[in-house]
Amino acid sequence: MKYSIIPVVQSIIGHCQVNDIKNIVISPGSRNAPLTLSFTNDSFFKCFSIVDERSAAFFALGMAQNLKQPVVLVCTSGSALLNYYPAIAEAFYSEIPLIVISADRPSYKIDIGDGQTIRQENVYEKHIGYSANLRQDVVHATQRIQKYRPSWIEGKNLQDIQTDVKMFNETEIKKTLAIAFQHRLPVHINVPLEEPLYETEETQLELPEVVTVEDENPGNIPQVFLDAWNNSERKMVLVGVNPPNMFEQEILNKLGEDPSVLVFTETTSNLHHPNFFNSIDSILAPIELSKEGQELFLDLKPEILLTFGGHVVSKKIKAFLREYRPQHHWHIGMTKANDTYFCLSQHFKIPVNRFFESVYGHEQKKSSDYREKWIGIRNRYQMKRKKYLKEIPFCDFLVFDKVLKSVPENFQLHLANSSTIRYTQLFSLEQSLKVHCNRGTSGIDGSTSTAVGASVYNQSPTLLVTGDLSFFYDGNALWNDYVRNDFRIILINNGGGGIFRILPGRKDTEAYERFFETKHSLSASNLCKMFNFEYTIVKDENELQSTLMNFFEPSDFPRLLEIHTPRLINNKILTDYFHFIS
Amino acid sequence: MKYSIIPVVQSIIGHCQVNDIKNIVISPGSRNAPLTLSFTNDSFFKCFSIVDERSAAFFALGMAQNLKQPVVLVCTSGSALLNYYPAIAEAFYSEIPLIVISADRPSYKIDIGDGQTIRQENVYEKHIGYSANLRQDVVHATQRIQKYRPSWIEGKNLQDIQTDVKMFNETEIKKTLAIAFQHRLPVHINVPLEEPLYETEETQLELPEVVTVEDENPGNIPQVFLDAWNNSERKMVLVGVNPPNMFEQEILNKLGEDPSVLVFTETTSNLHHPNFFNSIDSILAPIELSKEGQELFLDLKPEILLTFGGHVVSKKIKAFLREYRPQHHWHIGMTKANDTYFCLSQHFKIPVNRFFESVYGHEQKKSSDYREKWIGIRNRYQMKRKKYLKEIPFCDFLVFDKVLKSVPENFQLHLANSSTIRYTQLFSLEQSLKVHCNRGTSGIDGSTSTAVGASVYNQSPTLLVTGDLSFFYDGNALWNDYVRNDFRIILINNGGGGIFRILPGRKDTEAYERFFETKHSLSASNLCKMFNFEYTIVKDENELQSTLMNFFEPSDFPRLLEIHTPRLINNKILTDYFHFIS
Repeated sequence: MKYSIIPVVQSIIGHCQVNDIKNIVISPGSRNAPLTLSFTNDSFFKCFSIVDERSAAFFALGMAQNLKQPVVLVCTSGSALLNYYPAIAEAFYSEIPLIVISADRPSYKIDIGDGQTIRQENVYEKHIGYSANLRQDVVHATQRIQKYRPSWIEGKNLQDIQTDVKMFNETEIKKTLAIAFQHRLPVHINVPLEEPLYETEETQLELPEVVTVEDENPGNIPQVFLDAWNNSERKMVLVGVNPPNMFEQEILNKLGEDPSVLVFTETTSNLHHPNFFNSIDSILAPIELSKEGQELFLDLKPEILLTFGGHVVSKKIKAFLREYRPQHHWHIGMTKANDTYFCLSQHFKIPVNRFFESVYGHEQKKSSDYREKWIGIRNRYQMKRKKYLKEIPFCDFLVFDKVLKSVPENFQLHLANSSTIRYTQLFSLEQSLKVHCNRGTSGIDGSTSTAVGASVYNQSPTLLVTGDLSFFYDGNALWNDYVRNDFRIILINNGGGGIFRILPGRKDTEAYERFFETKHSLSASNLCKMFNFEYTIVKDENELQSTLMNFFEPSDFPRLLEIHTPRLINNKILTDYFHFIS
Repeated sequence: MKYSIIPVVQSIIGHCQVNDIKNIVISPGSRNAPLTLSFTNDSFFKCFSIVDERSAAFFALGMAQNLKQPVVLVCTSGSALLNYYPAIAEAFYSEIPLIVISADRPSYKIDIGDGQTIRQENVYEKHIGYSANLRQDVVHATQRIQKYRPSWIEGKNLQDIQTDVKMFNETEIKKTLAIAFQHRLPVHINVPLEEPLYETEETQLELPEVVTVEDENPGNIPQVFLDAWNNSERKMVLVGVNPPNMFEQEILNKLGEDPSVLVFTETTSNLHHPNFFNSIDSILAPIELSKEGQELFLDLKPEILLTFGGHVVSKKIKAFLREYRPQHHWHIGMTKANDTYFCLSQHFKIPVNRFFESVYGHEQKKSSDYREKWIGIRNRYQMKRKKYLKEIPFCDFLVFDKVLKSVPENFQLHLANSSTIRYTQLFSLEQSLKVHCNRGTSGIDGSTSTAVGASVYNQSPTLLVTGDLSFFYDGNALWNDYVRNDFRIILINNGGGGIFRILPGRKDTEAYERFFETKHSLSASNLCKMFNFEYTIVKDENELQSTLMNFFEPSDFPRLLEIHTPRLINNKILTDYFHFIS
């Protein structure tokens, strides 16, 4: 096949191939031409073209998260790779392996006034698994004037230098890929490239060894912890972001049936059991608001807090656990453990399944009324929520209830940040839905692109539920050829950043509307025309219900449903909800 | 007036006020509420609200470049400030003073799994004048559990700690602002903020001292250089990016009338004189293409190359000067000197005016035919260009000629990167136009936002000329309330990245169209509807001419003119141009 004549490029292509890294998201440019030509010429790779690098990176993030495999990003030199940074940070905190391959000028052309040239080496330093700064093909280097020759070539002959460069680059590429595979972190390979950039040759790739990932020996759980678990009558399990289908139902059942265990599942946890508690804020708010709040919380405080999965959305559970700190906080996970509640006492670097197998391999001794106590509170709010939903007018709260109930089984459900994820957490979702939200940095910047990227290879259709600011922010997400016809967007447009109305502060000033809520009168209709989406707008409950009836049916174009809700009443209805269920 | 109760916020507001930093571009968020409330409550400040931080930062960049004053950016914590980074890098290389004030979580809440939390301190490290990492108001710090108290408070009483924090923060803020003023570089102030974020108090700001900028003593030019200049018969002056109205006409006249001096001015130099050469590529291409190219270049090579201003667009002049290196390269400028041509021998840290006053204060001795030689070549291509323009069909090249001739006097002209700036460099512009292009990083990512920001306070109307990829990339530039009715956009839409057709490589493959040119069939009409622009589309010369007749007249809405050119012929017409004029 035809590849760029540049050795380091052939080397990169070879490493991707043997390691079965297939998906390559490319943004246009000239400096990266050797990479683009080589990847696109080789039918082993599936290449995607996306112009806006910010969107490209979130698209790759969605795809990598969905496939649970590394996805490559290729861009040109200069500010191009800075536009990747929001998605890199998200990938860093969400532990998603993106492999950024950035074309660069050779080092002697940095900071001398050439175009599209910045200081690319280690530019993601604070949020990256590893940065490999590759060396340039050396033929050019030896031809340069003395002053601009790299110091490491002095006194060596051409042959030796070439061998050195090849070895250095090979080692660095291997190391980088190993970190992407092993630690599930984003990594960065910076590749200095010099003209001629467009020359290719017919050649057989020299295939390197497959990167081997060391199996970390997880070890056993010391008996003292198993005993502590068995002896405790008050255990809380709190699950953050977690991919679907991670656990056997048997384990979940044992956990759900243990009366000494209360399981709080966030919407993003993708865990379900009738005894799990999935609307954390709805349980905690009534306690917070009640006169006996402090006593109740003291009574409900766990001895052992066990966490696994990624970041937790609920601010109320964080506030509760930080104020009423458990004696022990154990975290289970193969990578890092966050001290989210300021009382982390133990990190088990083992698979979560294994932990519960060990724990429930033994007879459970203690009886407990811990879960029962919480169930009492839950039952109360669940009845009241039903009642409340019948009483309120058309608003965000009502819309979330209707929309979430309408999503067909097995859909992939992507949630934008801010209001969307917080409202969704107040409702129960159908168990077969696979839920995702960018909770690594919780930014509003790339939810749509992430959903589009995640949909490409997904077996089921994808629905994105989003708010207006998040949607318009990432409008370029629709600017690509990879949006499937079964892709669906539900845009809940309340004319601004509705979440700010929920937060403290005066809301009746012009400054508030402009600088917090950022009120606007935009609609998605024109973007839909531009990017060939079927567009529907609804403004009341009847229209909503009738549109939802066939919104998810197969269609010749992707579809967007825009729901206009009244900007000024949403916050009151949400605040009142918490009082109503108390 | 009412300000946030948080001391460090009041301190920041005070420093901005005494230093006359008036313009504040705010993106919505909650963590930054203390800053937003304080800036917007104080009528001294002019605050702007822009949701997409990438666009907000380029908007601020345009404003700062236009005002020649620092502009403040305020954002919330998390990935928000990563979206500023493309504009920060542009500001860094273009020496434009942006002041980023980012709200952050207190340090003990970083990397423990809280939302919208990343490692903000020094995040722009590679492209920033200074990063101030402020300390948190200490009342909170002393209340924390031992483990999360900052080490520097140990053994101190509350009073001492508060004094320490205040002194530290004041010193850092001062230092940061001084660097913005003195070095014209972007700077970053990171501000950890803790709840309550929305509390304000009626108070009188404690006003700090004004930041004083040290006058660098420029010194004199040693006689040896003045002699060298006077004795040389072959001097080339090459001017990159340069603000309008920087020099007295008398100096320009002397320079233009010196027969031993050839002045090459780029379009972005904003310098004009009948003897200056403003279409560098049109002069160099015929030489490159001629059989006697090498001899001619040797004959035209300067002894002294004198440069000032920012980055240079023309690749041909770079190639010429790198291949035929002058004996001396002197750069004049108060900040850094780039070794763009690999032969930099002297950096004069003095104002450019002063250099020429010194040089032309003396009698000029030598006669020279250096400029004459170049004029011979120029005369030839200028006649041929006229002829060529009459022969070619409707295409990018023709459109640029017509469009650039149509711009009314005194307009501010913003040029997007890539094709737009390169085509424009082939034509002469009306002298009163004030030209700008983001040549610091030469990215396509923020040209529209920059133009909108630069237009806000400009005395004359602004025209942005842009290509399609650059325009759609930065579509969010139109999502704000600050687009003036006299703002004009001319979008030259050739259905993809036309510049790639000019570069080497095979153009007849599907992969080429998808991954290099990134062919599309988008039009701006829907974006114009969305953001209330009057929209016109033209597809031939007659339509173009008749639309341009009144396109620049006053109107009730801003206007966009989209010009569709035939995608496949543009590159051939450009390449043929260089042959035709040879």
